Amino acid sequence: MKFRRSERLIDMTNYLLEHPHQLVSLTFFSERYSSAKSSISEDLVIIKETFEQRGIGSLQTVSGAAGGVKFFVKVGEEEAKLFVQELCGLIANPDRLLPGGYLYLTDILGNPTIVQKVGRMIASAYARSKIDVVVTVATKGIPIAYAVARHLNAPVVIVRRDNKVTEGPTVSINYVSGSAKRIQTMVLSKRSLAEGSKVLIVDDFMKAGGTVMGMISLLEEFNAKVAGIAVLVEAEKINERLVDEYLSLIQLSDVDVKEKTISVHEGNYFSAHREV
Amino acid sequence: MKFRRSERLIDMTNYLLEHPHQLVSLTFFSERYSSAKSSISEDLVIIKETFEQRGIGSLQTVSGAAGGVKFFVKVGEEEAKLFVQELCGLIANPDRLLPGGYLYLTDILGNPTIVQKVGRMIASAYARSKIDVVVTVATKGIPIAYAVARHLNAPVVIVRRDNKVTEGPTVSINYVSGSAKRIQTMVLSKRSLAEGSKVLIVDDFMKAGGTVMGMISLLEEFNAKVAGIAVLVEAEKINERLVDEYLSLIQLSDVDVKEKTISVHEGNYFSAHREV
Repeated sequence: MKFRRSERLIDMTNYLLEHPHQLVSLTFFSERYSSAKSSISEDLVIIKETFEQRGIGSLQTVSGAAGGVKFFVKVGEEEAKLFVQELCGLIANPDRLLPGGYLYLTDILGNPTIVQKVGRMIASAYARSKIDVVVTVATKGIPIAYAVARHLNAPVVIVRRDNKVTEGPTVSINYVSGSAKRIQTMVLSKRSLAEGSKVLIVDDFMKAGGTVMGMISLLEEFNAKVAGIAVLVEAEKINERLVDEYLSLIQLSDVDVKEKTISVHEGNYFSAHREV
Repeated sequence: MKFRRSERLIDMTNYLLEHPHQLVSLTFFSERYSSAKSSISEDLVIIKETFEQRGIGSLQTVSGAAGGVKFFVKVGEEEAKLFVQELCGLIANPDRLLPGGYLYLTDILGNPTIVQKVGRMIASAYARSKIDVVVTVATKGIPIAYAVARHLNAPVVIVRRDNKVTEGPTVSINYVSGSAKRIQTMVLSKRSLAEGSKVLIVDDFMKAGGTVMGMISLLEEFNAKVAGIAVLVEAEKINERLVDEYLSLIQLSDVDVKEKTISVHEGNYFSAHREV
């Protein structure tokens, strides 16, 4: 059965979106649609142009016998700015204030649409970094890590606070949390991470950076190479930040429990050095 | 600027995939592409046919002034069977055996492609159930819950084992775990779930069902209505199953530590009563 161009365009769009960061050969599409490679090439030109114009992502064409096409997620600056502004508006709501100056963000992290967009933004910033593994720590960073990993076609590895029998043998470290100065433990399943992996660390919130530093120490035990650190929210006005290079989507600059105000603005995502 | 049909088909496909379970009006598309509604209607007929033929999902057309189109994920029986067989093959690997007859599944749950497919299958089974919230318990069920929720356009609510300051006021219950007969605690943030919500419970693994029963008890405190229970793996040969109606993708029938064999086959997903 031969496919019309319109059907091919629809199915190829879905296929590429479902297989980011994977080389798909022209032969594969040609056989899938019983169509000539020249037609497939024409289809891909149209898809590439539309993906770029509509801010869906970019298609990289690899030529030669082992060639094909690879889809990378890419979020446009305008779209990203609008989304971060929207998030800032959501977070600035004084109803979020909890005793002790903590913020209730559970609903935001529970919204799959928001989480997907956060994931797309972070993945977009590291799309060319050849990340092997996305690492996070239980629990709140997990959804963001998966949303990033899906777009980078990388597995997720979750660092835990406790030891669980279903993890098999583990490596654990003790670390001092940056803000509370408490000694805490982190555990990672030995077989979950291959030696020398290139990892992207992802989390929902960073204060002084103690948790991230803990993850870095733990990852050293696996000889992992930290290629990036990305957080949804960073708390500003930290005297001693333990981590230097990181990406944040949102900065929390001031939380005033008495006046019931939350001051929040865009993070360093737009100014930090990052690939485009 | 006017859009050609090919560009519209590509962008509409992406848009619908990104907005499942949401009514999108013809006017929205008509304005987005500066195109006549009649052209948009023709586009949607092509998309609908292709989505159905290729097992991407179904498009429901709502007519009238407030009308439009809604995308539902729908996984074909053949695709689902192939995927479950592939998963069974992965799980049956004797290297997964841990002391005590436990299985190492962390790598499978850490693979975003697998998790997305599991999510699509479960969402497909509950696509017409009008789920308000997807509920899971920390930690391993979280990625599956998000993968399901994304396709149902519903928020995720995570039950915890411990109390955390960033959750605000919580409701907690004690329950007896089904297999270990130990008293455990479950905690849910008070403001995370609206009274009377229709929920789908999702988890990675179910043995006797104690954890699921605990979640049901906790959800009763919120007057929630449990519309479904879905797990990735269920352990068979349980004398007293605490939960009757549930959906499982995979059944683990026998784990023999001495002989190093794992017997695993498809769950009740294909035989259980479910909407099609």
